[in-house]
Amino acid sequence: MGWNKLPAQAPARADEISNVKEETVIKVSVLYPNSAGCKFDMRYCLDKHVPMEQQNLGAACKRMAVEEGMAGGAPGAPATYVAMGHLYFDTTDAFQAAFAPHAQAILADIPNYTNTQPTIQISEVKL
Amino acid sequence: MGWNKLPAQAPARADEISNVKEETVIKVSVLYPNSAGCKFDMRYCLDKHVPMEQQNLGAACKRMAVEEGMAGGAPGAPATYVAMGHLYFDTTDAFQAAFAPHAQAILADIPNYTNTQPTIQISEVKL
Repeated sequence: MGWNKLPAQAPARADEISNVKEETVIKVSVLYPNSAGCKFDMRYCLDKHVPMEQQNLGAACKRMAVEEGMAGGAPGAPATYVAMGHLYFDTTDAFQAAFAPHAQAILADIPNYTNTQPTIQISEVKL
Repeated sequence: MGWNKLPAQAPARADEISNVKEETVIKVSVLYPNSAGCKFDMRYCLDKHVPMEQQNLGAACKRMAVEEGMAGGAPGAPATYVAMGHLYFDTTDAFQAAFAPHAQAILADIPNYTNTQPTIQISEVKL
């Protein structure tokens, strides 16, 4: 899957129009809690939801990632999240501009694969 | 940073000795809660902790990622996690074999950059 080796530092991206000195990448994480009675249809998520999202968000979404919770840190402990999805954008503005017009369609599809209430976090990618 | 485009499906890796039919990648996430009074020294984490981890874990660790929490999903909401770190391995066995001999050194360094108690999750990378 082409895992990157650790870069010494995130490269500056001079090819982008911006007033910000150093360009960043932001990551929107959707964390689905592993609550009692939770359901998560990974097949639907990968085969239907992700391609729909990809089509709606377009080129602004630089990368997507999906993971399935296996375990917690302590021996025998359950995973805190049954699944996690991540969307990468150049900036929060780019995310909002891409997401807003399709928010309703994307959010309305979530109950088709899970009954959990996901926690959303926006992060700046540092490495 | 070489963000990958979405692969249609994770490629099978036939070059690895395993009884498992389809190879997987696992992700160890270290989630630092954004609790009241929490401190997180991102500079130390990136400049000292990550290189030390990288050296100790060796080639078994295929990739590392670090993010800094910016915001939650609702307008004005804080990030659930002040920071997140991720380590990628071929298998949980590979993680445990690489981590166990250095666990003490790696864990003992955590108070040097944060006063939070991180949540650990092991996940299977699906996309």
